[in-house]
Amino acid sequence: MSLLDHYRKVRKHSDIICEPLKTEDYIPQPIVDVSPPKWHLGHTTWFFETFILKDYYPGYEVFSKDLDFLFNSYYENVGKRVLRDHRGYLTRPTVEEVYNYRKSVDQKMEELLVGDQAEEINELVMLGCNHEQQHQELLWTDIKYILGTQPLVPAYNGANPIPSKEIEAHDWIKIDDGIYPIGYSGDGFCFDNELGVHEVKLEAFQVRNELVSNGEYREFIDDGGYDKVNLWHSEGWTWVNENSPAKPLYWEEKQGEWCQYTMEGIQPLNMLEPVCHVNFYEASAFAEWAGARLPKEEEWEVASDLITWGDRWEWTNSAYLPYPGYKKAEGAIGEYNGKFMINQMVLRGSSVATPQGHSRKTYRNFWHPKYQFQFSGIRLAK
Amino acid sequence: MSLLDHYRKVRKHSDIICEPLKTEDYIPQPIVDVSPPKWHLGHTTWFFETFILKDYYPGYEVFSKDLDFLFNSYYENVGKRVLRDHRGYLTRPTVEEVYNYRKSVDQKMEELLVGDQAEEINELVMLGCNHEQQHQELLWTDIKYILGTQPLVPAYNGANPIPSKEIEAHDWIKIDDGIYPIGYSGDGFCFDNELGVHEVKLEAFQVRNELVSNGEYREFIDDGGYDKVNLWHSEGWTWVNENSPAKPLYWEEKQGEWCQYTMEGIQPLNMLEPVCHVNFYEASAFAEWAGARLPKEEEWEVASDLITWGDRWEWTNSAYLPYPGYKKAEGAIGEYNGKFMINQMVLRGSSVATPQGHSRKTYRNFWHPKYQFQFSGIRLAK
Amino acid sequence: MSLLDHYRKVRKHSDIICEPLKTEDYIPQPIVDVSPPKWHLGHTTWFFETFILKDYYPGYEVFSKDLDFLFNSYYENVGKRVLRDHRGYLTRPTVEEVYNYRKSVDQKMEELLVGDQAEEINELVMLGCNHEQQHQELLWTDIKYILGTQPLVPAYNGANPIPSKEIEAHDWIKIDDGIYPIGYSGDGFCFDNELGVHEVKLEAFQVRNELVSNGEYREFIDDGGYDKVNLWHSEGWTWVNENSPAKPLYWEEKQGEWCQYTMEGIQPLNMLEPVCHVNFYEASAFAEWAGARLPKEEEWEVASDLITWGDRWEWTNSAYLPYPGYKKAEGAIGEYNGKFMINQMVLRGSSVATPQGHSRKTYRNFWHPKYQFQFSGIRLAK
Amino acid sequence: MSLLDHYRKVRKHSDIICEPLKTEDYIPQPIVDVSPPKWHLGHTTWFFETFILKDYYPGYEVFSKDLDFLFNSYYENVGKRVLRDHRGYLTRPTVEEVYNYRKSVDQKMEELLVGDQAEEINELVMLGCNHEQQHQELLWTDIKYILGTQPLVPAYNGANPIPSKEIEAHDWIKIDDGIYPIGYSGDGFCFDNELGVHEVKLEAFQVRNELVSNGEYREFIDDGGYDKVNLWHSEGWTWVNENSPAKPLYWEEKQGEWCQYTMEGIQPLNMLEPVCHVNFYEASAFAEWAGARLPKEEEWEVASDLITWGDRWEWTNSAYLPYPGYKKAEGAIGEYNGKFMINQMVLRGSSVATPQGHSRKTYRNFWHPKYQFQFSGIRLAK
Repeated sequence: MSLLDHYRKVRKHSDIICEPLKTEDYIPQPIVDVSPPKWHLGHTTWFFETFILKDYYPGYEVFSKDLDFLFNSYYENVGKRVLRDHRGYLTRPTVEEVYNYRKSVDQKMEELLVGDQAEEINELVMLGCNHEQQHQELLWTDIKYILGTQPLVPAYNGANPIPSKEIEAHDWIKIDDGIYPIGYSGDGFCFDNELGVHEVKLEAFQVRNELVSNGEYREFIDDGGYDKVNLWHSEGWTWVNENSPAKPLYWEEKQGEWCQYTMEGIQPLNMLEPVCHVNFYEASAFAEWAGARLPKEEEWEVASDLITWGDRWEWTNSAYLPYPGYKKAEGAIGEYNGKFMINQMVLRGSSVATPQGHSRKTYRNFWHPKYQFQFSGIRLAK
Repeated sequence: MSLLDHYRKVRKHSDIICEPLKTEDYIPQPIVDVSPPKWHLGHTTWFFETFILKDYYPGYEVFSKDLDFLFNSYYENVGKRVLRDHRGYLTRPTVEEVYNYRKSVDQKMEELLVGDQAEEINELVMLGCNHEQQHQELLWTDIKYILGTQPLVPAYNGANPIPSKEIEAHDWIKIDDGIYPIGYSGDGFCFDNELGVHEVKLEAFQVRNELVSNGEYREFIDDGGYDKVNLWHSEGWTWVNENSPAKPLYWEEKQGEWCQYTMEGIQPLNMLEPVCHVNFYEASAFAEWAGARLPKEEEWEVASDLITWGDRWEWTNSAYLPYPGYKKAEGAIGEYNGKFMINQMVLRGSSVATPQGHSRKTYRNFWHPKYQFQFSGIRLAK
Repeated sequence: MSLLDHYRKVRKHSDIICEPLKTEDYIPQPIVDVSPPKWHLGHTTWFFETFILKDYYPGYEVFSKDLDFLFNSYYENVGKRVLRDHRGYLTRPTVEEVYNYRKSVDQKMEELLVGDQAEEINELVMLGCNHEQQHQELLWTDIKYILGTQPLVPAYNGANPIPSKEIEAHDWIKIDDGIYPIGYSGDGFCFDNELGVHEVKLEAFQVRNELVSNGEYREFIDDGGYDKVNLWHSEGWTWVNENSPAKPLYWEEKQGEWCQYTMEGIQPLNMLEPVCHVNFYEASAFAEWAGARLPKEEEWEVASDLITWGDRWEWTNSAYLPYPGYKKAEGAIGEYNGKFMINQMVLRGSSVATPQGHSRKTYRNFWHPKYQFQFSGIRLAK
Repeated sequence: MSLLDHYRKVRKHSDIICEPLKTEDYIPQPIVDVSPPKWHLGHTTWFFETFILKDYYPGYEVFSKDLDFLFNSYYENVGKRVLRDHRGYLTRPTVEEVYNYRKSVDQKMEELLVGDQAEEINELVMLGCNHEQQHQELLWTDIKYILGTQPLVPAYNGANPIPSKEIEAHDWIKIDDGIYPIGYSGDGFCFDNELGVHEVKLEAFQVRNELVSNGEYREFIDDGGYDKVNLWHSEGWTWVNENSPAKPLYWEEKQGEWCQYTMEGIQPLNMLEPVCHVNFYEASAFAEWAGARLPKEEEWEVASDLITWGDRWEWTNSAYLPYPGYKKAEGAIGEYNGKFMINQMVLRGSSVATPQGHSRKTYRNFWHPKYQFQFSGIRLAK
């Protein structure tokens, strides 16, 4: 696929995700970490405008100084930020204006991408497309949160992400001790945090071929898992006590039956599907309860060819830290990854919400251990 | 005017206020005390449905159980509340659905109000209309806040409230000491907090015929009014220090010139207009600085025929407390006023945002002393 | 009694109150409103040093610049404050040093007070003595809080305040409507907030001769008083829900029996004693439940000769606001009272902890409605 | 040294540290992480009583049920906790009573330790002694915080920890890539988090032989290090902005000269001494500014024989996570380490406050990245 076609396809996918939304759904920011869909649509567009059009499109004039200012996010090098927790108060630009912004930038980008480009531009376009794909996954999680936590719990009513597969049998896969290479070494795109290929020495370990199911997680609950202090990290125990009754996000008990909010609305819980929307504390406590542990990210990467993955991001017991030789890029682009390398845990794999072509076994996703709103599940190791 | 015509006129006025809004503007709740316009439109409708249609329209079925649940506000007797600080996360019902709700209730109300009614119904309709008029004033203040505090500060672009009059000359009006009647004694509508007509003995006092102007308030600022601890209540001083630099809401200094956000956007400050959007702490500190004081609410009521008022709500130095013999109504309607009679200060008069026919000299408005977002000004007494 | 003897007697009383304390008890500040006893002892001494010795004792040198700095409290005119909520972290000066400070200032004051004084000095000494008497009452409430809220709930083991009288019979006292004088008009000492004698017109009312008893309050609890939203102010209802299970401070239920922490330790609740340590919200909700109301402060003052009082501070339904003609004193002394005239309710009477000679029927005590830690009770009116 | 002599020596050392304190200094808890010295003395004693005397001293009766309850800390298995952030409100037991508790437990322990013991007891005594040594280091940091952050900044006036050495020259030590063993493999005492000896593969790296000095850190400040967003983690930048002006704890500028609070009071900053009381964010930003990085804990351990250490705990860029094969102990003792293995960074080395004999190159200290109050410094790697 040409770069231009790739660009078009990626951009189109954001529109498809938002297509079933009402104008009202584009606005709220119910928690600071959930951004309004309007903001995602604007911010990903701003990325192409700022890092490509301004520098490479001859005589480019910004579509709107206001939008240029508003859709800057964490890139503190570029300009004064709009307060991150005030995104839900922005009624202007309207949703229609944001779509006009997208159209205008797309038109200019398409003009730019006709024919061959300098390698520098290609790389920035690929970065921008991958950036937008990351936000597409956030669009899913944020739309789900916005719809699923309001009193009327409306369904999404659109083309859903692919449903999860049911889990039929568990096996433990054995991996020998040894020295293994870690990190991305191919020719395609990867983020800078995957670079710095290096060898690690691992002890022998085992990892389960399938994820933990809703049924298994329910056994943990029924066995009083949320009441047993010894299963939890100290911080996790505080979380449990401040979020009583603790449970996976979107789960609720109705007349003794467990249900969960899904994009189709509230549904009975399928006990064979992988458990989802658990945070690191829960994943770790479950593993402790099951007499196992979470894998390290290097173990996961080594085992990745032998296990089934792709349905859920999987919490690992690895902190998000730089690989040997990691270097931040210069300037605003350099803010991308390195500055988050503290107090976050790595998730490996991908999820039903991950755009096609945006996953690979070296991909390092990361979130603070308290978050449940990602499509996050549990794999056991020992 | 017939009750039916009155009902129609009041209801129509809410539509007119919201007419210039974009769908997006109906959604946010930027601070807990500023409700989304959508919520005001729904809640005032719910009032008629709950207290009139359910009881008096034969065979009435609620328009929607969901809306019945969502638009209940502080009436804890009626049903489980939606958390008050989560109103900005409700994307559903959509704005369109809320307007449909209004139309449906209006139609049923109009059927009910054709011809003569039982006195009981008349009274409830009048209460509902006055309730909606109160929310119309809140619509103005909340729309102003939603538009005026976001980064792009859009103008409202609609039919504005009547502009303020310029102040040309100040005089002190003298009132003798004596025994004066206080409270509402007419035949028309009033709220229960105005009842309990009673006599008070007042010392002789003076009150200014006009409000304090922007120009006078600017002198206070230029003289370091916000830095002089002795002018402030202890609580006010804390407020000043936590809101540095303190100033009237919507004021800002640009290159040495004071501007303010108005419904037409940011405008140079007219020094002859009455100062607006000050809280009680500021009003009181200004009065202290000016060698005067705020009037008591009884003084204001006694002087009301001799002064110019109607441009701004005016902070008094009276706490909001019951008149002698005050009795709460039974049931949910009884929640209306009495439960707020603590830690609120009385404002008298009315403002440019007060609907026509909704002001009288006995009207007791009230807010916590910290709030600036009402159309609130300063009158001096001594 | 000579001024010198009065001074000595007042100062001695602070020592007597603190005599049973351990050194450790002088230190903590468990909530921001409860100051360490050490701080009270230092601050009252600082008052005499700052407002009298510095100005009137020839050649006076401050005992210690450090203490001069530390024991300044709310008097922001005098010097930079130590953060009010950090008083419990001051381990230095030691308790012994504070007592040395007291001795040194007492010695100088006694030298100054031998013989006749300028009227100006007399007035400041009387103000200082009354100030110290106010802090003596706070010493009781703060010591009770420090001892009564820690896990081992130690008894005070000292000479207690006079025990409460049991309540034997209730009567309603009737007061005619009329015009009554309010405020202090005698020759003795009073605070500036009692001045501005003025007449008020009151409707006829009734007031109970005795306070509400523990037994009556228990009936309120048993009848679900804390669960009935209609009895409460909106703010009070919030307080109830944030302090669940709400109850008078120091009450606790043990195996079905109500006990309370007293200065002698935890004791069974005497149902005939007046209820104590309730806040304004509770007092007001109880009155509503009982089909009555709280008196206004003017009603209380008018009725004071006909009722039994002195056992408890009594919440009134009057906000703490200035009397007509109230003027703040100039300078730092002027910070004393006026700046608190917002969001506080008046309490009238006095309590078992009030020093002898420090009560009168015009005395205006005041606290924010949420506080329970004062010796505060309930009188009904209707 | 016999176990009995070792026990005596360790216990004596706690007394020596506290000897210069006034009774008042034993009480406050100025921030939740700084415990009152009284609490450390009681809690370490409780450890011996609970885990040894109760089980192994025939017929042992607890010294006091109250103290047994109060001095339990994070061991949630053992009993109901006193709220951790309320330790500063405990005036009882008095300091004298806590010393009596220590004496009583010591006497029983000494009786128990005469002659040979079962290996089980020996191990628990060694664990208790190491536990007390950890608290001795906390005693230093907490006493320093209590004295150094109050307005009068009193000196400690006791036998100080050994002063820091001045840094004379820096060299970069080169370590080859290779496979290295990590973890404790000796016969002596170690904590469970050091076990699980395993091999790691390291790339070649360099590490500085000496710590970063005050002078170097001052250059970082003078160069605007706290203003350059690109040097900081996102979380660190938030910390900088919420703690403005950010600087190492205990540093202050007086008339252009940098001083710091030390146990001898406020002293001019010695530019040749190692910088101290920086948190992880500062350590990491400094390293970035210097064109270097912090070492990983494995790198530190491998390099430890070639560098000078012992003056300061050294922040590493390793998260505190379990070694391969790590297993929590059963029961209450098992709460010791594992539950903190999230959102903490590892510090290696030891400090001037570390008791003699309590350091080794495999020791894993850990704190949340925001804390400055430990004796923590910076070593560079690249």
